[in-house]
Amino acid sequence: MRIVMAGCGVVARAFLGLLAEHRERLYAQHGFSPRVVGVIDSRGAAVDERGLDIAALLQAKENEGTVAALAEFGFSPADGEQVIRESRADVLVQATPSSLAEPDVAIGQLKIAFSHAMHVVTVNKVPLAVALPALRELAEYNRALFRFSGTVGAGTPVLALAQQCALGDELLGIRGILNGTTNFILSRMHIEGEPFDDALAEAVRRGYAEADPSADIDGIDTAIKLVILANVVMGREVTLNDVAIEGIRGLPQSRIDAAAKKGQRVALVGEIGEQIRVSPTDIDASGPLGVPANLSAVSLTLQHAGDVTLIGRGAGGVETATAVLRDVLDIWHTIGSHA
Amino acid sequence: MRIVMAGCGVVARAFLGLLAEHRERLYAQHGFSPRVVGVIDSRGAAVDERGLDIAALLQAKENEGTVAALAEFGFSPADGEQVIRESRADVLVQATPSSLAEPDVAIGQLKIAFSHAMHVVTVNKVPLAVALPALRELAEYNRALFRFSGTVGAGTPVLALAQQCALGDELLGIRGILNGTTNFILSRMHIEGEPFDDALAEAVRRGYAEADPSADIDGIDTAIKLVILANVVMGREVTLNDVAIEGIRGLPQSRIDAAAKKGQRVALVGEIGEQIRVSPTDIDASGPLGVPANLSAVSLTLQHAGDVTLIGRGAGGVETATAVLRDVLDIWHTIGSHA
Repeated sequence: MRIVMAGCGVVARAFLGLLAEHRERLYAQHGFSPRVVGVIDSRGAAVDERGLDIAALLQAKENEGTVAALAEFGFSPADGEQVIRESRADVLVQATPSSLAEPDVAIGQLKIAFSHAMHVVTVNKVPLAVALPALRELAEYNRALFRFSGTVGAGTPVLALAQQCALGDELLGIRGILNGTTNFILSRMHIEGEPFDDALAEAVRRGYAEADPSADIDGIDTAIKLVILANVVMGREVTLNDVAIEGIRGLPQSRIDAAAKKGQRVALVGEIGEQIRVSPTDIDASGPLGVPANLSAVSLTLQHAGDVTLIGRGAGGVETATAVLRDVLDIWHTIGSHA
Repeated sequence: MRIVMAGCGVVARAFLGLLAEHRERLYAQHGFSPRVVGVIDSRGAAVDERGLDIAALLQAKENEGTVAALAEFGFSPADGEQVIRESRADVLVQATPSSLAEPDVAIGQLKIAFSHAMHVVTVNKVPLAVALPALRELAEYNRALFRFSGTVGAGTPVLALAQQCALGDELLGIRGILNGTTNFILSRMHIEGEPFDDALAEAVRRGYAEADPSADIDGIDTAIKLVILANVVMGREVTLNDVAIEGIRGLPQSRIDAAAKKGQRVALVGEIGEQIRVSPTDIDASGPLGVPANLSAVSLTLQHAGDVTLIGRGAGGVETATAVLRDVLDIWHTIGSHA
């Protein structure tokens, strides 16, 4: 299988690391022996249709900050869409940063891939937030597979679990703590009585939150995950505009204290019921969603089988990379392991 | 798709109910329009190659206690293996009672099905406990699919989740509370200080435990689930003989009290690490496995993605029936939706 990659950040490099580390297992268990024929980053690209040397590629990226520095195969500047098109890859792995302000580049890459009947694995949430129904239709029209399990739950397979559950039962609703940064901040406020601004600063200092943490604390990240879940496992063709969103920016300590008095804690909960919404909500600390900081928890309510809850790390580079590998293998098996 | 069913107990009847209730959704979402061409119970059978009338079949079973009472299509006595063989069904759904004392009938049915290249969905744990590696080999040799997701976690898709996780990551170990009856008994002993025998009697009275609760309280049920997990998701060809088992029969209150003094509780934990074993174990009540009575919890330890925990009801007729429906649909999609 030929893979072209857009993006060479933390997740992409962890994915390349997994391919190298698990090479023998992947071949023995799945007959899977991928070739990475192209990698694009923000400064250039490296291309070799015989398959790039992954160790050399990662070394060039580490030394020079761009894959363009790879001897013989790197070049700069590079036109990302052209590299994707000319790669004639079986799969595009898109691991570019999620920037809501600029969805066009990421969407453009997906359109190029689909229009060349190329399958896609993405971890970029932004195209999904603004155009998931249209993108799924485009993929289907071109008979291309479209996978993005790393966008919800990172390495924890939330989407796959929900799809399994929905197969044999009626999925009535979803409720979850889907953003680790806000859960960290709210935990600090709850346990240590730390004010919102200090807890946020600590989250940034530890690298949990981005330098611009708006998407996390304003509830956008959680809302996007709900959009993805609603489309994929509940058959609702919605986008970000359909979600009622209230974040936790500037949440007063008094709100935390009021919950604590009832033996509860405040969490940023995302819910899909009749409405789709994100809001700070009082929950039982000892209930299924009362998970420690940095863990995610999702409860699915099923008509017959009751509540099913999945708990795991909801973020992280290598965690997300395991989801990319899962998706690539899923495509490999779905297309019949002969590419 | 043509289905023949062995067993017409609680799970089988709930499965037939789901087929009827979800008929429209199954056709709309999956193009799935099954015909149940034969049903065998302990007293007889009903057969119609055009597809039995499910409502009439369930009525006959309720009124007379056997499907043999179905007008025109029922008969008694019936040779189960002959009915399976002559049904020319695509799938055998085996929902016969798990009786460790008599594995031969259930194993015989599976062999007949596989040797006729018939796919199988079973919820009977016993053939899996004593012969899973051989049965999987037989299925593969005959190019038949073999699914049994209802045997671990009932309606909670433990096996599917573990398989997903193992795809993109290395599954290092599994630890779980896999038996609701023992979790109920231990909860009563912990919370209400009730002696073991009284808590067991209460579990039987409420219908959680069988009249003969040995398989639950002696740890056999948990051990069988570990055998299934070890084979399917960790590639270990083991049977029940490879599990070190210690149950909770007659567990003294002093053991419960000693754990409580440390802020912990005793649970019957099943573990797959270097060894495979079942034993009463002290756990944190507030940790991921500290679930209320009647819920199951399984934690998977992954090399890169950390711990992933799945919590849900681990038993129940209709819950298990949703797993059967999942498996049947999985087969339907795997064989290409054209049967």
